[in-house]
Amino acid sequence: MSHTEESVEIRVDEELIDGTLLTPSPPATAAPGVLFLHGWGGSQEQYLGRARTIAALGCVCLVIDLRGHVRSERRREVVSREDNLCDCLAAYERLIAAPGVQRSAVGVVGSSYGGYLAAILTSLRPVSWLGLRAPALYEDEGWDLPKRWLHHDTDLVAFRYRVVPPEENVALRASAAFRGDVLLVESERDNVVPQAVIANYRSACRHARSLTYRVLEGADHGLSEEAWRSAYTTLLVNWLIEMTAGLRGPG
Amino acid sequence: MSHTEESVEIRVDEELIDGTLLTPSPPATAAPGVLFLHGWGGSQEQYLGRARTIAALGCVCLVIDLRGHVRSERRREVVSREDNLCDCLAAYERLIAAPGVQRSAVGVVGSSYGGYLAAILTSLRPVSWLGLRAPALYEDEGWDLPKRWLHHDTDLVAFRYRVVPPEENVALRASAAFRGDVLLVESERDNVVPQAVIANYRSACRHARSLTYRVLEGADHGLSEEAWRSAYTTLLVNWLIEMTAGLRGPG
Repeated sequence: MSHTEESVEIRVDEELIDGTLLTPSPPATAAPGVLFLHGWGGSQEQYLGRARTIAALGCVCLVIDLRGHVRSERRREVVSREDNLCDCLAAYERLIAAPGVQRSAVGVVGSSYGGYLAAILTSLRPVSWLGLRAPALYEDEGWDLPKRWLHHDTDLVAFRYRVVPPEENVALRASAAFRGDVLLVESERDNVVPQAVIANYRSACRHARSLTYRVLEGADHGLSEEAWRSAYTTLLVNWLIEMTAGLRGPG
Repeated sequence: MSHTEESVEIRVDEELIDGTLLTPSPPATAAPGVLFLHGWGGSQEQYLGRARTIAALGCVCLVIDLRGHVRSERRREVVSREDNLCDCLAAYERLIAAPGVQRSAVGVVGSSYGGYLAAILTSLRPVSWLGLRAPALYEDEGWDLPKRWLHHDTDLVAFRYRVVPPEENVALRASAAFRGDVLLVESERDNVVPQAVIANYRSACRHARSLTYRVLEGADHGLSEEAWRSAYTTLLVNWLIEMTAGLRGPG
């Protein structure tokens, strides 16, 4: 199957964020939709290649630039988690409004900060599949403050080595309430999101309909080597093929 | 790839158990080995078809009849967990003695009672991959007593609805210490091994290198319908393909 690509601008709070909408060609009548959320400091490019592969399988895909990035990079120091969550909500609405998207079959995939946002998004909108790669974790406090401050003003490193019960944290609480399918991917040598954070997400996802937990051997947080990026792509694509089997129409 | 089959007799405690050894053809020089353990009341037939598929992928496979079954069915009422664990150990030794088996690449797959034994086996022999379908759980007490007595003399049903910490149970303790890859398959409508037991195994497997947790929709404990058996076969085969990728030689 082939796909088409379209640059889209999505309105959030009187601002615009950029995205790319990828639609299987010929268009499906009831295709799964998948939203991809990059990590802090990234851009839609992080997931564009993977979205192309997944669109070619028969899913409508949307990749976006979160605020504080690319077009609005100058606002990097002031954008808050609340701002970026609003970006995700607006992107979700844009995705399900795309022709042919089956609203009951939406997946959200995110890396690091994007994984954190993806987990929270499941508590606000219907999501069937949640893909988390090295999902970040922050204390709830300071939700509306600039995201960058969390790295200066709190002991984030110590927090990320703690066992955090789901009740204590908005992203883990959302994960604990999530009843869909979860992909959880850890980088073996992650100095930013240590194993303890992944273990917190894993324990939280106790009601998930299925769990696919994998470790990328030798990989660092940002998947700086092509072999690691490619291993993650394989995991993600195979997982989505399994999850959307029977929903993608003739492929 | 094709495979060859050979009936084998394996000596345990002055008795013989029957098995079938399946070897990829042409034989590999360093093939993964997989041991399959049937549930209580079953036989090697339960896994023979799946073992054929997996042997054809390049794994040496061994299916066995546990004591108290088939040839020694008359001893059904007296065979103990200790007896059957000895069967598993003898079968494990037979598997790794087969030509071409890579001793550092052995998987054990079991259903129900066979899953319980498989979990315990990982604490006694090197195992890389542990496949558990609807694994049973029993209290440790009465280990040497006839297995059948556990269903008469203990409140097994109540026990199986309890949260059991890994420290309290030999199979969960083994699961908690296991560092390899785990496949955990639940039947959605299992009246014998309820969801709580699967949740106990899932929590216990906290150090697993990877976890693949799936629920067979609508399925009963014994997978009485062909669609459920086939769905399980697909999960198991895909998991073993992923786990043994790069180890099976040219396939």
